Amino acid sequence: MTVAFDPTLYVITDSRVARGRDQIDVIGRAIAGGATMVQLRDKDLSAREQYALGVRLRDLTRASNVALICNDRVDLTLALDADGVHLGQDDLPPEVARALLGPHRIIGVSAGTPAEFAAVDITCVDYLGVGPFAATGSKGGAGAAIGSTGIAAVRRLTSLPIVAIGGLHRENAAEAMRAGANGIAAIAAIVGADDPEAVARALRAVVDASRLR
Amino acid sequence: MTVAFDPTLYVITDSRVARGRDQIDVIGRAIAGGATMVQLRDKDLSAREQYALGVRLRDLTRASNVALICNDRVDLTLALDADGVHLGQDDLPPEVARALLGPHRIIGVSAGTPAEFAAVDITCVDYLGVGPFAATGSKGGAGAAIGSTGIAAVRRLTSLPIVAIGGLHRENAAEAMRAGANGIAAIAAIVGADDPEAVARALRAVVDASRLR
Repeated sequence: MTVAFDPTLYVITDSRVARGRDQIDVIGRAIAGGATMVQLRDKDLSAREQYALGVRLRDLTRASNVALICNDRVDLTLALDADGVHLGQDDLPPEVARALLGPHRIIGVSAGTPAEFAAVDITCVDYLGVGPFAATGSKGGAGAAIGSTGIAAVRRLTSLPIVAIGGLHRENAAEAMRAGANGIAAIAAIVGADDPEAVARALRAVVDASRLR
Repeated sequence: MTVAFDPTLYVITDSRVARGRDQIDVIGRAIAGGATMVQLRDKDLSAREQYALGVRLRDLTRASNVALICNDRVDLTLALDADGVHLGQDDLPPEVARALLGPHRIIGVSAGTPAEFAAVDITCVDYLGVGPFAATGSKGGAGAAIGSTGIAAVRRLTSLPIVAIGGLHRENAAEAMRAGANGIAAIAAIVGADDPEAVARALRAVVDASRLR
């Protein structure tokens, strides 16, 4: 793996949010605007469709030197030779994923609360997805918004990189960063935008300007 | 892998059909009655729950010298060191699964029609699941029943082992075998039975007596 891990601006695919536009084009524009990491995540696509989309995303992210992370599925990660996997609390345990992926691939885990964080074997984990930061329409059943208080609560427990996720946009990204996030994730704000490149560029500027360290 | 491939009587887990009973107990009884192969398949369980159930199923099937096959997920297959994977038409392509699983694990593919069979790269496949044989309540959206005509239609195209699946029970298993199946799969008939061992024994007797070759 030669792609550097950089969670500054993490864009996540979603065919519904993309409203019929080619996701390769949308994600390509996000990268042009400053996205540093891409997650293949699409609950509406079958595994076979995700694989087909992933092959194209892998070509794009490699050409752009940006990490590609698969949501949930370790097999898809291996099949695509992607850079890592993102696991929710209901997915394969991180230690099982680590055994399958080897020491170099990136493993991210969702931990929205200190209790969820406490249940994670952090020796297997490279970053945490912490959210939902604000109300969001992209992820059904993601729980109540945790806000900057929630980010700060997990920040106090760990030095692992934290990506704030859920309902982030230009107006609240700085708040998440000041609470201790190392980067922000965006689905709707970027993938749903009429101009994904311009929005990514604006978000990236906010994140870069409000970084604590 | 030391477990022989034997698709004679293939029992498939289903927590809903098991009606709250411990699936390890139910499957153990099915094996005692003559089941030759087990599939971990449960659309109601998360990947983490499937993994936990799979660890226990793996111990059971190893102790019984019966193959354990995971539905859909190649990563679960690898994590459990299971004997193989069963792939539907929407899952990862068989050739991708073969690359991840190596040459010795079992790969089964669902192919209910000659058209679905024609789309399969059979050089990567160890057996075909052909169905639904009859009307079934266990698999929603499995398509119209294909009956013995449907089994025979795929049989004419290949010498691969065929497992008839979907709505099979003691009264129609012989018909499926005479149409060219090498074995039958059962969810409801066995897992839903009050006495899984007795039903498995009866089904096994029918299959053994009606085998073409």
